Amino acid sequence: MSKFERRIYNFCAGPAMLPTPVMEKAASEFLNYRGSGMSIMEDSHRGKLFEEVLDRSLSLLKELLSVPENYEIMFLSGGASLHFSALPLNLLKDGESADFAVTGIWAKKAMEEALRFNPVKKIYDGEDHKYTESPELNDSMVNPGAAYVYITSNNTLLGTRYANIPNITKAPLIADMTSEILSRKIDISKFGVIFAGAQKNIGPSGLSVLIIRKDLLRRSGRTVPILMDYALTAKNKSMYNTPPTYSIYMAKLVFEWLKDLGGVEKIEKINEEKAKILYDYLDTTSFYNAPVKPNSRSVMNVVFTLHDKNLESKFLAGAEEKGLHGLEGHRLVGGLRASIYNSMPKEGVIALVEYMKEFEKKV
Amino acid sequence: MSKFERRIYNFCAGPAMLPTPVMEKAASEFLNYRGSGMSIMEDSHRGKLFEEVLDRSLSLLKELLSVPENYEIMFLSGGASLHFSALPLNLLKDGESADFAVTGIWAKKAMEEALRFNPVKKIYDGEDHKYTESPELNDSMVNPGAAYVYITSNNTLLGTRYANIPNITKAPLIADMTSEILSRKIDISKFGVIFAGAQKNIGPSGLSVLIIRKDLLRRSGRTVPILMDYALTAKNKSMYNTPPTYSIYMAKLVFEWLKDLGGVEKIEKINEEKAKILYDYLDTTSFYNAPVKPNSRSVMNVVFTLHDKNLESKFLAGAEEKGLHGLEGHRLVGGLRASIYNSMPKEGVIALVEYMKEFEKKV
Repeated sequence: MSKFERRIYNFCAGPAMLPTPVMEKAASEFLNYRGSGMSIMEDSHRGKLFEEVLDRSLSLLKELLSVPENYEIMFLSGGASLHFSALPLNLLKDGESADFAVTGIWAKKAMEEALRFNPVKKIYDGEDHKYTESPELNDSMVNPGAAYVYITSNNTLLGTRYANIPNITKAPLIADMTSEILSRKIDISKFGVIFAGAQKNIGPSGLSVLIIRKDLLRRSGRTVPILMDYALTAKNKSMYNTPPTYSIYMAKLVFEWLKDLGGVEKIEKINEEKAKILYDYLDTTSFYNAPVKPNSRSVMNVVFTLHDKNLESKFLAGAEEKGLHGLEGHRLVGGLRASIYNSMPKEGVIALVEYMKEFEKKV
Repeated sequence: MSKFERRIYNFCAGPAMLPTPVMEKAASEFLNYRGSGMSIMEDSHRGKLFEEVLDRSLSLLKELLSVPENYEIMFLSGGASLHFSALPLNLLKDGESADFAVTGIWAKKAMEEALRFNPVKKIYDGEDHKYTESPELNDSMVNPGAAYVYITSNNTLLGTRYANIPNITKAPLIADMTSEILSRKIDISKFGVIFAGAQKNIGPSGLSVLIIRKDLLRRSGRTVPILMDYALTAKNKSMYNTPPTYSIYMAKLVFEWLKDLGGVEKIEKINEEKAKILYDYLDTTSFYNAPVKPNSRSVMNVVFTLHDKNLESKFLAGAEEKGLHGLEGHRLVGGLRASIYNSMPKEGVIALVEYMKEFEKKV
């Protein structure tokens, strides 16, 4: 069976739905990769089959994101949390400070982890308005001596994003793009480092990608654990140790799918359409509430609540019955959330809005 | 298609062959995990489906290895190399030293990485005899003040193992069991820490398991990067961050398969039979050569050479034609190697020996 017989719409925040054609392709060659008589999962990472997969993944990612030549692209084991530690260790000299814009819980976690190794400064804290908007950051906010400025470009948990990437030139801008990488056109040259856990727009969990300006690779001069050492990973073309080969294979399929679809420009339009359908509806009803300020709304993670919170479990149970899965909000904040990553088809969003309307009428 | 139509014998050292029934089971539910309408790869790590997978994986591993109650078992992202750094960071106080028995390249790498953080002492070096045997280690060799004694229990690259686990009581014994975990009965209580990359006897690459005596969890008191922090990972039951969910699912299938087969005791007998078939043949011919001393021979990785090294590429090409894949030795040492992990059926070893005999006759 290499076709879905039944396919739900999965709104989980990640690990998340992967594109249906990608899953079907992976299923079709799961037991026999290109006639080899084995799964790609079973082949040596030094084998020709996998080396081709790795090269192709990295070159497709470079192409899809228009990564300039002065950047390195690499895969690492572990998700975004790996980089929470690896960034200060690779980029900050002993005692050097970094600036953090705390637009949500992930930025806060990244800052707290950096603080275990180095001083940090908060240049923005959205806690006062419950993280319902993203700030306008600019160079005047950057502290003297800050070795970098850290942002979470899209906030999975709270459903905010920077509608426009901040224009920071006084220090390298570092962005956690876990939940929006490949979803909209980004000018990579505005960043010192971009990183992303794979489990939203790239592939299975346990893998992350890093895009780093080459001059930052050996900045700290510190002793960095080998699997967190950006320079070592770059030098060994993501193969210092055995990489998560199957996850990289899945990433390759996702990148191929995205390229065939028309690339990031095309998916950006589709993503905007999808989010608009959902936000437009949320704005016309008082039965539901979208707490995020319009200009800061994420196109990937649509956070909303029911006016009557007591109806939440009924809403979720009814949704599951209709094959609309994973709509509960993050356990730290509650409420509801529809994660509509690249892989979520427009039909899924339409089905969700139909259900929401129906639920509103019914109760 | 959820059955293999063609299946080769894959002798790769890792990523390696996985058990055929495991691959077929994974294929059969790849697109629809237990009627959920999605892949387990796509479900949230906080979802009931995955939490059940994680719990079951950990409890099966505990059962298969008879892990005592005073040990923690956990999954981490990244392979054995992660622990090369994590061990000194978690276990050694600033300035404390550890002892290393260097029976091969992996032990050497582990020692070199530890040396970046702490002093180390070599209590054995097999370089003089080209790592063709394993030493008898004992307490009299342990340096005063050594916080632990480190061994590679089975040496993937050079095909050696400790036939008997050293009896060390003066300091906790730490073992890299990547290439032999679950292949023979081990008395866990002899160890402070056991770790293993998954890609030999457990599942896909990018995952590792750690078994650690609870009193060692917070030993160093150092600042350890979050994804390498053993105590934090234990406290969060391997879910501090999003774990490599699909790899853990595959591990679960492998553990279930092994349990159904009869557990570690049963597979140990099968493994000994398989290795005997191959070594017995190697010992009767001068056309091939098995360099490892009999008592140190690995049951998982059988290293051999051709008397006439010029025939190697011909040997390998002929083997591939017969569906005997991945027999080249590690790129650092050359020669030939048959990795015959738990998943390699006896028939695969018989087919290899038949081919070796045929090749010997033909050339």
